Amino acid sequence: MKCVSKNSEVKIIKLSSFSEAERAIVLTRSKTDILDIAGKISPILKDIKLNGNKALIKYIRKFDGAEFDSPKDIEVKQPEIQEAYKTIPPQLLKTIRRCIRNVNKFAKTQLAKEYYVQIEPGLIAGRRVVPIDIAGLYVPGGKAVYPSVMVMLAATARAAGVKNIIVCTPSKDGKLDPATLVAADLCGVDKIFKIGGVQAIAAMAFGTETVPKVDVIAGPGGPYVSAAQKLLREEVRIDFPPGPSEGMVLADTTANPRFVAADMLQEAEHGPDSAGIVVTDSMEFAEKVRKEAVELLEKLPEPRKGYVKENLRKYSCIIVAETFGDAIDFVNEYAPEHLQITCKNARQVLKRIKNAGTVCVGEYSPMSVGNFIAGPNAVLPTGGDAKFISGVSVDTFLKKPTVEIVSKKGLGRLRKDIACISDFEGFPTHTYSVDVRFEKKRRC
Amino acid sequence: MKCVSKNSEVKIIKLSSFSEAERAIVLTRSKTDILDIAGKISPILKDIKLNGNKALIKYIRKFDGAEFDSPKDIEVKQPEIQEAYKTIPPQLLKTIRRCIRNVNKFAKTQLAKEYYVQIEPGLIAGRRVVPIDIAGLYVPGGKAVYPSVMVMLAATARAAGVKNIIVCTPSKDGKLDPATLVAADLCGVDKIFKIGGVQAIAAMAFGTETVPKVDVIAGPGGPYVSAAQKLLREEVRIDFPPGPSEGMVLADTTANPRFVAADMLQEAEHGPDSAGIVVTDSMEFAEKVRKEAVELLEKLPEPRKGYVKENLRKYSCIIVAETFGDAIDFVNEYAPEHLQITCKNARQVLKRIKNAGTVCVGEYSPMSVGNFIAGPNAVLPTGGDAKFISGVSVDTFLKKPTVEIVSKKGLGRLRKDIACISDFEGFPTHTYSVDVRFEKKRRC
Repeated sequence: MKCVSKNSEVKIIKLSSFSEAERAIVLTRSKTDILDIAGKISPILKDIKLNGNKALIKYIRKFDGAEFDSPKDIEVKQPEIQEAYKTIPPQLLKTIRRCIRNVNKFAKTQLAKEYYVQIEPGLIAGRRVVPIDIAGLYVPGGKAVYPSVMVMLAATARAAGVKNIIVCTPSKDGKLDPATLVAADLCGVDKIFKIGGVQAIAAMAFGTETVPKVDVIAGPGGPYVSAAQKLLREEVRIDFPPGPSEGMVLADTTANPRFVAADMLQEAEHGPDSAGIVVTDSMEFAEKVRKEAVELLEKLPEPRKGYVKENLRKYSCIIVAETFGDAIDFVNEYAPEHLQITCKNARQVLKRIKNAGTVCVGEYSPMSVGNFIAGPNAVLPTGGDAKFISGVSVDTFLKKPTVEIVSKKGLGRLRKDIACISDFEGFPTHTYSVDVRFEKKRRC
Repeated sequence: MKCVSKNSEVKIIKLSSFSEAERAIVLTRSKTDILDIAGKISPILKDIKLNGNKALIKYIRKFDGAEFDSPKDIEVKQPEIQEAYKTIPPQLLKTIRRCIRNVNKFAKTQLAKEYYVQIEPGLIAGRRVVPIDIAGLYVPGGKAVYPSVMVMLAATARAAGVKNIIVCTPSKDGKLDPATLVAADLCGVDKIFKIGGVQAIAAMAFGTETVPKVDVIAGPGGPYVSAAQKLLREEVRIDFPPGPSEGMVLADTTANPRFVAADMLQEAEHGPDSAGIVVTDSMEFAEKVRKEAVELLEKLPEPRKGYVKENLRKYSCIIVAETFGDAIDFVNEYAPEHLQITCKNARQVLKRIKNAGTVCVGEYSPMSVGNFIAGPNAVLPTGGDAKFISGVSVDTFLKKPTVEIVSKKGLGRLRKDIACISDFEGFPTHTYSVDVRFEKKRRC
């Protein structure tokens, strides 16, 4: 039996009888096909590179639907920010402050330190920690608003010590969400531009007369924003731009099916391309989770309900493994963005999780804690990228150049070995640059 | 006056009168134009993706010039490694051991630690440190041999805790350099394949029947290898593949012009596309360095002399700034792979260097110390990439997933704020996944 109970909107699939094709769809999820989009957006990127503000204004009009008479107007002015503080509810301001405090607190714990060690007598090696000069953050918006994404990116860049932080985020009819503006201001963002989509990424990568060229771009976006980031990797540092949200729950029968169902649908509600998956080792438990999920699904308001129904047809499901060990293996193979673990000895199970963006451990750690307020960053690798990368952190905004300091005596001790290997590899000047330092003094 | 004394092979250029065009050539150096090469190598990448070993063997024959009857023969067997130990001179073995010891020692100091901190009462956040599953290293070869590159990559991946390390390196008529083999074996490499160029990168990125698919590819190569890495960034993690070598010397009049000239030509001898640059604030000193450099150049054997003469026409020169502060600014703008500093208060000057792959500080720290034996990695960002990234380190081979652990009480304390922000952003299930945990007990 390939798939148990296909007739329900919430599918239960046995891992042992997962068909190759279904498995591939679930594991690949909705990955942006960069080649598909490259042709469409390359002319936009080139136009902005060549024509700067003039092209930028044109694409903002076309894609963000916002009209700016002068390029100066795309930058947010101080009075708009002051006005925003007056507009937002006091509770939201309090919440944003708490989010910033926690993100900043956690980011600071991640900061690597500068150090120097003696490798051999007379040979000191070290590692410095230097913030990049200028960071470009992308905060999606337009239809929805994401002050929490602003906090995740900007508080982290600030904690890394970046001096110049600029943000691009799309406006709605030329106006930005006040909460997002307040979040940016509280994080100490230097410049905020009302630019969305491909044109925002291009403007930050190449720079225009108004938007500075940045060294690093970080931030999530839709397929077009993501493709633009990938195509501009030659211009700026962009790790792996996050794709659609994913949440996976690893649960055994000790978990509460009602909590698990809520967690399953939590990331799935982001959009039609998102994924919510439960992995367990009990068919009975899976059935209970399904019952709860079906019930919850019907209660969801639109458009969320429609989104979840859509991704339940493709990427979201409940998977039943033969053993809990197999379930853990599947988690590692899937490498989810967000993982929730509720099971016996959850802390021990955590140690066996190799691939995940972030892991919420235990019954009272739903993913939404991590999404907003826990401290760790919520801008995380998706699509299986957690196999080889980590989420946004202070490291996104830092360089760590190394240092070598050698004394004359130290160099003397290394001389023979340097000559041996550089002669063997055929680099005479490498050897000579050591030898010259031991010639009899000769000033020229 | 744009350029002082153009008639010499070693040009001296005043920073204040650097023409836009010359400045652009020096700053851009020989950057691989990926678009130029993409068309040529894409069919090779696709062929290996689709046809595995069969295609691989074909390209090894065509580009590496090596004939293998069976795909099994591209993997190095144990007897070849044992034979290699007998072949290499005892001094070289000693040198390799010392290089490995120091690279390993420094790499271990770079290792981030797992930790957990209390962010708020009842809310613990942490960061784990997990090695990637399988690393693919590329060590160039064929015409020349690079046991030192093998050490830099493999000892670092091993220090990071990577369990499966595979290496691709081109053979000469089906044979590998014994020193490179010994270096790989001493670093604990698991599999060594006799594959070079584009076909090596494709084999590791996609996997074939013989070569495992890897999670990360690291290692330098020529323009084709570099372009293949860039094109396959969707498949595996590849940061910024290093381009041609660069060395920059920042020196004031307290430096010995003879040492500075040697250091200038040291990285320049790598190839016709390499760069060796001196930045100083004294024309008199620049003239002295030039005199030494011209003298040294004539003494160089071929092909090194030809390489240096070639890059002296384009990327290598002596630059004279008005002030030492301007000289430092130019170093940061150039963002060299290797930087040598010899000047008054060199340790203070070091603090003002923001962009460099590695920095050798003081009169007795030539770059070749760092190239081979000091400990810090010599696989470093080139072409100005040091503005936003760092060289190969244990971090190249690690992921750092975050963790959130919340108690019921802790979640209760966060509840109102999570609801506030997730309601504001329009995610009902995010709010519900917290609320459900505080419903009156109800088992389903």
